[in-house]
Amino acid sequence: MQGRTFGAHRHVDTTTAKIWSLSRSHGLLPIHSVLLGHDGSMTNLLELISRCEVALRTLKQSVVPCPSEVADLLAVDVGEPVNERDITIVRNQDGSPLLYARSYTPLSRLKPAFKADLMRADIPIGEIMQRHRIEARREILDVGYLSSDPRLEELLACPGPYLWRTYNIITQGKPLITVKEYFSTSLR
Amino acid sequence: MQGRTFGAHRHVDTTTAKIWSLSRSHGLLPIHSVLLGHDGSMTNLLELISRCEVALRTLKQSVVPCPSEVADLLAVDVGEPVNERDITIVRNQDGSPLLYARSYTPLSRLKPAFKADLMRADIPIGEIMQRHRIEARREILDVGYLSSDPRLEELLACPGPYLWRTYNIITQGKPLITVKEYFSTSLR
Repeated sequence: MQGRTFGAHRHVDTTTAKIWSLSRSHGLLPIHSVLLGHDGSMTNLLELISRCEVALRTLKQSVVPCPSEVADLLAVDVGEPVNERDITIVRNQDGSPLLYARSYTPLSRLKPAFKADLMRADIPIGEIMQRHRIEARREILDVGYLSSDPRLEELLACPGPYLWRTYNIITQGKPLITVKEYFSTSLR
Repeated sequence: MQGRTFGAHRHVDTTTAKIWSLSRSHGLLPIHSVLLGHDGSMTNLLELISRCEVALRTLKQSVVPCPSEVADLLAVDVGEPVNERDITIVRNQDGSPLLYARSYTPLSRLKPAFKADLMRADIPIGEIMQRHRIEARREILDVGYLSSDPRLEELLACPGPYLWRTYNIITQGKPLITVKEYFSTSLR
């Protein structure tokens, strides 16, 4: 969200401009632009769009040394312990997957109660934040388009194309979580 | 967002359930549900959907004694000075209105720099918050459907039906702003 000016000479940020460009070049729907660029809770958005309750399925969760490409995003040292979580969000009704995401959280920035929720149960991040009444802001870092990908085809039970976005959730001035999300353009 | 439980017996909040119900009974599109129920920046969402820059036009802005129905929402005393702001968000290209909103902010909760931005210029709240890197959460309070309304027809330059929502922006545990927004179902 850098690069904005205010008042009469306001400009949209670079991520929004990139989404417009993707949208034009790939014929995306307005709902796809929203899924890529909104700065609210993704779980909430998926429930609004799909008109049904959704659930989180944890595929993998472990504490790992922070990889270098993630350390930059989180502003921590490479190798610092981070919680790595791979999840899908699925429709409650039939278990069909809507979204796949991988997130990283530095253990040093987690309060105990939040940490317990994040590491124990299948609870979406947005809900953990609601539960603990955490005030935050989401900063969309990048977005993209993938015409095909065998692993996503399996995870999302759906052929391409796919859209992805990366964003940080920032609390108390520091990134608490960095997330990369993937979903199919059949989501609408 | 009250009323949620977690884990296997998770339930959606009452606002989301109300949006599903409105959506079914009035044949709304997924994008309408998102506009009603998302908890991110509305200006950002309007730019994503309309694929163009938007601008804020202040119709009226004044400090007034807090009305009783607003005092409850903001958790302040009736009569306490609040900033009342009536705005439209318009497409930059042609000036056509996308949304009309009225907001109330208790002066006692405004930091000086934020106050200057809110009271001086045509800057959307989401952008003021970005500018000052304010961490917050949005709590959707209620949503509704209006088949027609002469004042909205004038303000939005568009016949009904309309959708509306009320929400609070909460920082440091207290409502900083309460907002009521109206838009036409032709927004898609």
